[in-house]
Amino acid sequence: MDHVQEMIRTHPMRTKTFDEHALVACVTACHECAASCTTCADACLSERSLQELVSCIRLNLDCADVCEVTGRLLGRVSAASLDVTRAQLMACREACQACATECERHAGHHEHCRVCAEACRSCADACDRMLA
Amino acid sequence: MDHVQEMIRTHPMRTKTFDEHALVACVTACHECAASCTTCADACLSERSLQELVSCIRLNLDCADVCEVTGRLLGRVSAASLDVTRAQLMACREACQACATECERHAGHHEHCRVCAEACRSCADACDRMLA
Amino acid sequence: MDHVQEMIRTHPMRTKTFDEHALVACVTACHECAASCTTCADACLSERSLQELVSCIRLNLDCADVCEVTGRLLGRVSAASLDVTRAQLMACREACQACATECERHAGHHEHCRVCAEACRSCADACDRMLA
Amino acid sequence: MDHVQEMIRTHPMRTKTFDEHALVACVTACHECAASCTTCADACLSERSLQELVSCIRLNLDCADVCEVTGRLLGRVSAASLDVTRAQLMACREACQACATECERHAGHHEHCRVCAEACRSCADACDRMLA
Repeated sequence: MDHVQEMIRTHPMRTKTFDEHALVACVTACHECAASCTTCADACLSERSLQELVSCIRLNLDCADVCEVTGRLLGRVSAASLDVTRAQLMACREACQACATECERHAGHHEHCRVCAEACRSCADACDRMLA
Repeated sequence: MDHVQEMIRTHPMRTKTFDEHALVACVTACHECAASCTTCADACLSERSLQELVSCIRLNLDCADVCEVTGRLLGRVSAASLDVTRAQLMACREACQACATECERHAGHHEHCRVCAEACRSCADACDRMLA
Repeated sequence: MDHVQEMIRTHPMRTKTFDEHALVACVTACHECAASCTTCADACLSERSLQELVSCIRLNLDCADVCEVTGRLLGRVSAASLDVTRAQLMACREACQACATECERHAGHHEHCRVCAEACRSCADACDRMLA
Repeated sequence: MDHVQEMIRTHPMRTKTFDEHALVACVTACHECAASCTTCADACLSERSLQELVSCIRLNLDCADVCEVTGRLLGRVSAASLDVTRAQLMACREACQACATECERHAGHHEHCRVCAEACRSCADACDRMLA
């Protein structure tokens, strides 16, 4: 996501609230995790063991939605309300942790769940650094 | 949003976690607030006093995104993770309160801000009842 | 969605491109359909006959996304680019028709599919009137 | 977006409809463009010449929404309905072209508009290759 980094660096209001490097990393992680969860849900729907993957699909869908919107809020570098940003980061960390834990249960059987769990853990960590 | 109510009532897993009436009200309020904030941002961009409305536009955009995703999570009646749902409801209440407060500052001059503030307050209240 | 109607009516740029009544109806239909499809996907994931509902879930997810974004574009009353709005309306009509057709196949067995098909047909019709 | 590539490669239904390389490129371009447009809108809201950037902000917001949802549809590798995917790709190409043209008008004065125009052109091209 090279354009994302350039966009954040050329924003007229440099981020004062957050470390710029951490912000770029978190916006990128949110979009990567959203995209990964969207694909993982569809991949799970293609598996024969579909019935065992219902919780995984549901958490994938929630996590994709929450990450996408968190990436949007952070991508608005001006951060209109820090309270809103922080609350959304907390929801995102929660969603990523829940989805990672579920995906990890299926990581031995499904490569897409293994990769998706990685994307979720990376995003949870990136949110964590923003909240620190 | 009559279809929303019917959809939630015909879901095979009746909501155990939340009161069904409060759930329908909150899903509806989230989608109404998201739509109101999207229109308010565009309306503000049409005003001559645009410069004074920059914070309002930013909060409108954030609030639209946060409400939309909260409405989605709640609309998945099964509620895959209660922790995620609750964290997202808290972010939504925060976004609605911030946006309502800003819109109310412009309510005397701009009808769209007055109506949007109402939609935000209703949604904040609906989230509050879900979190109670 | 009373707030939506009020928001569109109080927008400083009254819609010149579209009939105002048709616009309010279409924005509302898009959000109703998006919410219905989100709930229908989750409801389908709760059914025992899950395996037969995979296509339905996939079309529900696509249709929810497409309707939501179409509702957003239309809710920006100023309509920055009529070509973009029209192309998005065509995608929305396509998504609603595809999802309605699939939901109707399951309407006899699942009430949520029957209601969702109605929401999809209403939205396809509303898009159609906007494109006329 | 390395995870996106891995996710698409580990999906049990390898894409038959689209060239896999083109699909990965287009999903990535959609998410990059969505994120770029979201930041560009906020950056424009921070500029002194805000009044001249109103159309740019509006097209940024529309383009961000359309790209995001197109990225989601394509990320569901199974492609439930090819007609819907194609219609959405056409809307996305239209949105990217409109936004790129407007951003290019401001590229001499605002670095963020220059970078955003690049992201829009890349995404329009990626959609074009998918539609070919």
